[in-house]
Order: sequence, then structure tokens, then C-alpha cells
Amino acid sequence: MAHVNANFLKLASGYLFPEVARRTRAWQQKNPSFKLLRLGIGNTTEAITPHICEAMHHKVDLLSDRRTYTGYGDEQGDQDLREALCDFYQREYGVRLSVSDFFISDGAKSDAANIQELFSPSSVVAITDPAYPVYVDSNVAGGKSGAYNGVGYDGLLYLPARKEMGFVPEPPKEHADLIYLCSPNNPTGSVATKEDLKAFVDYAIRHRAIIIFDAAYADYIREPRLPHSIYEIEGAERCAIEINSFSKNAGFTGIRLGWSIVPGSLETEDGEAGLLNRLWNRRQSTFFNGASNIAQAGGLAALSLKGRAECRMLVDYYLENARIIKEGLEKIGLVCYGGVNSPYVWAECPNQMRSWDFFDLLLERAHVVVTPGSGFGKEGEGYVRLSSYGHREDITEAVEAIKGAL
Amino acid sequence: MAHVNANFLKLASGYLFPEVARRTRAWQQKNPSFKLLRLGIGNTTEAITPHICEAMHHKVDLLSDRRTYTGYGDEQGDQDLREALCDFYQREYGVRLSVSDFFISDGAKSDAANIQELFSPSSVVAITDPAYPVYVDSNVAGGKSGAYNGVGYDGLLYLPARKEMGFVPEPPKEHADLIYLCSPNNPTGSVATKEDLKAFVDYAIRHRAIIIFDAAYADYIREPRLPHSIYEIEGAERCAIEINSFSKNAGFTGIRLGWSIVPGSLETEDGEAGLLNRLWNRRQSTFFNGASNIAQAGGLAALSLKGRAECRMLVDYYLENARIIKEGLEKIGLVCYGGVNSPYVWAECPNQMRSWDFFDLLLERAHVVVTPGSGFGKEGEGYVRLSSYGHREDITEAVEAIKGAL
Repeated sequence: MAHVNANFLKLASGYLFPEVARRTRAWQQKNPSFKLLRLGIGNTTEAITPHICEAMHHKVDLLSDRRTYTGYGDEQGDQDLREALCDFYQREYGVRLSVSDFFISDGAKSDAANIQELFSPSSVVAITDPAYPVYVDSNVAGGKSGAYNGVGYDGLLYLPARKEMGFVPEPPKEHADLIYLCSPNNPTGSVATKEDLKAFVDYAIRHRAIIIFDAAYADYIREPRLPHSIYEIEGAERCAIEINSFSKNAGFTGIRLGWSIVPGSLETEDGEAGLLNRLWNRRQSTFFNGASNIAQAGGLAALSLKGRAECRMLVDYYLENARIIKEGLEKIGLVCYGGVNSPYVWAECPNQMRSWDFFDLLLERAHVVVTPGSGFGKEGEGYVRLSSYGHREDITEAVEAIKGAL
Repeated sequence: MAHVNANFLKLASGYLFPEVARRTRAWQQKNPSFKLLRLGIGNTTEAITPHICEAMHHKVDLLSDRRTYTGYGDEQGDQDLREALCDFYQREYGVRLSVSDFFISDGAKSDAANIQELFSPSSVVAITDPAYPVYVDSNVAGGKSGAYNGVGYDGLLYLPARKEMGFVPEPPKEHADLIYLCSPNNPTGSVATKEDLKAFVDYAIRHRAIIIFDAAYADYIREPRLPHSIYEIEGAERCAIEINSFSKNAGFTGIRLGWSIVPGSLETEDGEAGLLNRLWNRRQSTFFNGASNIAQAGGLAALSLKGRAECRMLVDYYLENARIIKEGLEKIGLVCYGGVNSPYVWAECPNQMRSWDFFDLLLERAHVVVTPGSGFGKEGEGYVRLSSYGHREDITEAVEAIKGAL
């Protein structure tokens, strides 16, 4: 009698983005002649840049010749890519790490979901509210929460990120073992300062907790005073894991490539130094067989000086989109946050509307898809997230459509 | 105080293949002038075929143009690839499945490791001995075993696959909830008949158990009487999940692409029909973001008639290698199994030697790397696995080297 994993049954509802897709599809089927403008999911739209494409073509050519063909790579990722990342952190952020601290993956989502497996189910898990749903859902599926109580899960510690706090959470008053942070933030577009992160690092060292720092949008930061990596904060190498990706700066959303940093210097209550690094290595060697070698060739090109210059232009493009969205909505009196150093604009729903109601209104009247803030957590209620991932002409059209509809 | 997941600490030793790599590296460092011949890991060596390369080049071109660029795909995989797989099962195996039964992944290893997450930790898990180590290790990490007892893990049910049984296990006498089978088998090269699988399907239906059927080597079967898919057995759609991959027939070991079939018709003790299909869908939507779109374009080409013809030639090449290995070793009196309908030759160690001793002997005297059978489980002791993945000239040289050394 095979019984299913009861933790999966706790998951309250469908994952947010498939639900947005479902409602959108239903509307489109009823209104097949209307053009839909998508500012919902954070899905890149601009082409992969020339230097990166060239590298991937070259890799396919190498694979097509038995003299240069390669099969399985290392589960941890190609050595040259790990070295290039290590150099990148030193060069761009002034952060010193070891090559063995880096693990290449098929993307930040997988790592963000899988990393909780390293920790005891009895861990107290603190998660920013609102947040990328994968942090909560993976911990529920991983047995680190109680049941769904109508607004959230028993046993999880939600760290509110409210307007009056600039949408950056504060360390909890209570004890936590694991803390999820994301900066630049998805969904609110807020960016933590060094002081904000310092407070969390101090907390983590005091509580011997581990911070999971999601830096997938780091390349959107344009102000030098803001930290791109948590390892810019002293002490973070003792208490923080960082997750990042090529999705949002190089357009690899579909190509799939990311990395995690699990420093050998991390401290836990169990065993000697380096334990978490070794366990993640074991986890990846057992549950994963490396990222696609073609994607890794592209990632290596993205980290070259030429690749970095191309990716900067790509990010500039989306940042300009974000500016257009934010300024457009502000012109018609909507209160907006984020959209600077971030691809996401976080807009207050007008007239005290609820998130899904404003979602439906924008879909019906403006034919624009956004993401309801409440899908990211209780504290997201009353907001929607607008994504700057889109062709310029579609972004402009969407902003005009919203202006006309409200 | 972050505590680690104690289940990970149970894992007795390094994963087998990294350990083989470590010993090999150490030997190579001591003997830098010798050429090493690798028949160890099942790592493909021949080029990706023209039709598949063309499709991947084309996909890179599409990604390099903003008009044809695509970002995130569906977590379940591209619809056209799922449809092509569904057609493939109908066309080649006469098996009728639904498109929604198919889930594209980054390879069979990930799926084989992750699938246990769907099931309760209290599940009794039965695993063939010897077996691909991922089945055991993932269940240990997933909390479905007790401690390591020196030969295996408490709580796991090992199904011996011995010489006198043709290396095909029999259904257990005891009750099991989950049963792992692999045919053509890694490591023994044995292939289950329809009658063998029928006994397991009957057992599973009787015990309401779920079979995890790893068919990653199905394309190596050349005898029409042997089943390629467990769904060729009546009733399997009620009790079996099948896992497969493009690694061993199309050379995608480094490109990364596989699939799982979790039929909507599967039965469990909990809830309505379709539950496992929905839970796997939820699991993949939360922990995964789809396989690389370039790999999926290659996979689609591999399933076309042209692609299938190319892949057949690729598999023929490795099958001929297997024949050369087997016949060469038999000429010097080694007792060999497998190597027909399978890329693996399973050789008895001579003179009652133990697996790692014979591994060391072949490394020292013949400079040939094999895989020690004991690394696949207690019942593998006294055997080594020879892999047919290699250039023909290296395979021939390795066989001659072994002949000269013994």
C-alpha cells in the first residue's frame, strides 16, 4: 500500500504562476481577437547576445565531432566555469571565495527549492512576506512546516516586509535556524542596504542560523553603495549561502543555468567546518548530474568581459522598461515602489482593491497581465507586481492601456 | 542553531563513481606517462549525430533573434516534445499513454533520485541488489531507511539478482510499497522478459505497490520478444512509473535530457485516481523549471524518423563494442554476462578475487578502469562491470591489455 508523502498534500493551492497562466488562458479563449500584454511572470524576452550564442554554437560543433565530444561533466559544474565565477566575485564585488564553494546548477529555482533538504525538518524557517513562492512551498514539501491555516503555514516564521519598512524585513525577535532573503527583491523591487544585511548576518551568527540569500537580480543594481552579494558583509561567509542565476542578466530563463555558493567556512551545530559544503556536494552528486554542457559554455562566455558588456546592455534595456512602467503608472496616480535597481515595479492597488480583483480588472479592461501581490504572501495583499520583461513596444502599449483603463 | 538533515549523515560513503574517479586520478598522478583506458563509468564517447546537432544549432539561432526568442518553457516540458514521446511509445512499443502522463526532465538520474519524494517516509522500499547506487542513496537521504549496518541499510528490502537467477530479481516474499527495477540492467546487463515483469506487476497490484522502472537502456534491446517499456505489460499503467533518458541512445549524457511517465491511472491508497500524476506535476513545478530548451530541441530531433535512424547506428556502435569486450574476455577464460541487448558486460572476477582487488589489478597491470561490482551492492561482490562506451580503438586496446595482463 503505497502512501504518498503527506507534506505534499499540505500544499494549499496551485503554484502561483500556473494559476496566473490558467486565468489568462481562460480569458484569452473567451476573447481570442484581443492582444494580451504580459507584465506578469518574470520571463525574459530579448535575444541571447552574440558572444554567448557564438559560444553555444561552438559547443554544439565540439559535440558533433567525436574527437572533441564530451559526455558527463562534473556534478558540481565545469571547473572553468566555477573558476570564472570565483574570479568574477573577486573582480566585480571584491569578494574572496574558493572555487570549491561554487556549485553550478540548472537554475536558481532548483537550488532555492532543494537547499532546505540539507537541514533538519525541525528547523525553524523564517521567510520574508511577500516572497517568491518557492521558498515557502519547498519547505512545506520538505516537512518543515505544519498545516495551512488559511493565511499561511503553521510553524513557518513570516518576516513582514511592509511599506513603512521600505519593504525590507527586519531580523525576527524569535529564534530562527534558516532565513530566506532576496535582494533586489522579488516581488517588491526593494534592495537591502549593507546595514540591512549586516543586521541579518549579526543575527545569524548570534543564533547560529543560516541565511539563504537569493541574488538572482544582483545585476540590476546600479548604485555602488548597494551590495550585490551577501559576502560583501563581514561574517557572511560563516552563515550565508548565496544563490544566483544567468536567467535575468543573460536571458537564460529557458536555457537553464545558475549557481549556488555554499562556503566551506559555514558553521553549523553538527560536526566540523565544511560539513554543509560536503553535504551539498553529496546531495548534488546523488540527485543531479550537472547542468547542460551547452548552457555552461554559454555561461562561461557570459562571464567574459565581452559577455559582461553585452549582459549589461540587456539589463539596461529591462531597467529602462521598469522606469517607463513606474513613471507611467505614477502619472495616473498609482503609488509605485521598486523599479529602480530592480526589474519589478510593486504597485499599490487603487481604491483599496484586493490583488486578484485588480489583476482581473487589468486583464478585463487593459488586457494586461500582472501578478497579484497576494500570491507572494499575506503581506502582498493590496499590491500587484509588474514585470519589466517585455519588448519595449509592448511595455509602452501596456502602460498606455493601463492609463486608458483606469 | 541550524542542524543538518540527519538522513544525509547516514549515507555511508562517497558516491561510487567519484570514488572510482579518485582512485583513477591518484594512479594517473603516480603514473603520468601511461595511457589510461576507461571502461568504468557509462559515459558516452561518440559524437552527437548530424540531425540532432542541426536542430540545436537552429534553436540557438532562434534564441539569438528577439522575434523568435523564448524564455521559460513549461516545467513539464515542451508540449511538442511530450507529444512526440507519446507518439513514439505508440509507434515503437504499441503502448497507449496520454501526453499529460509525460514529464520532461534534465535526465534520468534526477528523476530516479527525486521520485521517492512523492512517497511517505514510512514506505517499505525494495531495491534490486546490485543496482545503480542512486536508488539506494536517494531513499536514504529521503528518510526511507534506517542506519547503515556495514553491508546495507536497515529498513530497505534488497532483492538479490544472482547468477542462478540470470541476474533478474524475483518479487519479494515480504510486503513492499515501492520497488525499483532496471532493464536492461545496470550493472549486470541482464534483461527482464515479459514474464519477469508480469510477476512484478502482479505483485504490485496485489500489494498496491508502485514500481519505479528505469528503462534508460531500452534502445539497446535488439530481440523483439523482450519488452522495452513496462507498459507493454498489462496492468502496469495502474502500478508503474517509468524513467528514461536521451543519454545512452543519443549521447546526451552532458546535454542533459530525460523523461518520466507518471500515468494518471496510477493507484495509491490515498485519494482519488490521478493523485501521483498531480503530485509529481506539483513537485516539478516547485522544484524544477524545465529542461534546457536547446536540449529539448535536440530531443525532438532525436525522436524524428531521421533522428531515430541515427541513434540506432550510435547504439549499434556501442553494442559492437560490448560484443568485442565480452568475446575478448571469454577467450581468456573470464566468465561474462550481459553485453547483449545491453551496453554493459558483467564479468566474474577470476580466482575468487574481490571486486576492488580486481579493479586495482586491472588498473595496475592493464591500465584499464572498470567499475567494481561491490559498489552496486553486496550481491555485486566478486564481479566488475565493463562499459562499452568508448572509441572502438580504445575498446580493442583495452581488451588486448586485459588479455596481456591476466
